[in-house]
Amino acid sequence: MDDDKFFAIALEEAKKGFHDGGVPIGAVLVSKDGQILGKGCNKRVQEGSVTKHGEMSALEASSPGTSLPPPAAVYKGATMYSTLLPCVMCTGACLLYGIGRVVYGSGADQNLKFDTVKILESYGVETVCVGNRESEEMMARWVRENPERYGREPWAEG
Amino acid sequence: MDDDKFFAIALEEAKKGFHDGGVPIGAVLVSKDGQILGKGCNKRVQEGSVTKHGEMSALEASSPGTSLPPPAAVYKGATMYSTLLPCVMCTGACLLYGIGRVVYGSGADQNLKFDTVKILESYGVETVCVGNRESEEMMARWVRENPERYGREPWAEG
Repeated sequence: MDDDKFFAIALEEAKKGFHDGGVPIGAVLVSKDGQILGKGCNKRVQEGSVTKHGEMSALEASSPGTSLPPPAAVYKGATMYSTLLPCVMCTGACLLYGIGRVVYGSGADQNLKFDTVKILESYGVETVCVGNRESEEMMARWVRENPERYGREPWAEG
Repeated sequence: MDDDKFFAIALEEAKKGFHDGGVPIGAVLVSKDGQILGKGCNKRVQEGSVTKHGEMSALEASSPGTSLPPPAAVYKGATMYSTLLPCVMCTGACLLYGIGRVVYGSGADQNLKFDTVKILESYGVETVCVGNRESEEMMARWVRENPERYGREPWAEG
């Protein structure tokens, strides 16, 4: 099934991020007709960015960097694949662009204050958890090995 | 009052964006103790970015670009000043970082599908509309003068 194929690409992005010492979360954005619009990983460590989560990097990668980003219609009904459940910022980004489905590997390590599955579904976005242990374990390992970095994340603040 | 002072800085950012041909929306993020954490404007045109709205640019500017962004505590209770009401993506970003107040110039040109004032307030974020006509008019002028660019925005899709 295509979901497996695209999720594997998100996982590949997460692994690249992990390899570079970054937060191991990857994402790929796929249009309604199956075209990859963009992919990327969390750049919090690599670029010191507070906004470039995996999903945001995938969205950014969907633009050619010219003065005119793709028309909004390109994103309508697209699927966002992410190795971990999107946070509330990435949820907002998905809603803004009319993403129709969010397929994620695991909801572990989610900020419990924001039930993003519920938020997405309340706006008609389908959510699918594929239950990927590798994403979960990679994240858990990163947290263990980077306590100082993890301590600066909004999640760690409870 | 400090709100006026900081809102004026956001407006200055919006004007810079307008001057460069960009979507004229500016923002400044101010910590609970009155320090400017970051400021910026929408970079959709200038950088072809689909994620760099004014508020996201202000958040990005809050990072020194090193490997460790500021701890989440820095953002807790901060105020986001934006010349126009934050969209649902920027609303999510404010929620992620525990922003306590959102002060905006006008709610005109907002995507009506997402009542971001209601969303912000449902999570305890105070919202204040200062009723700034200049922000509103600058945006209206940009839309009139850039129909092709505006037509690609998610707002224009209805």
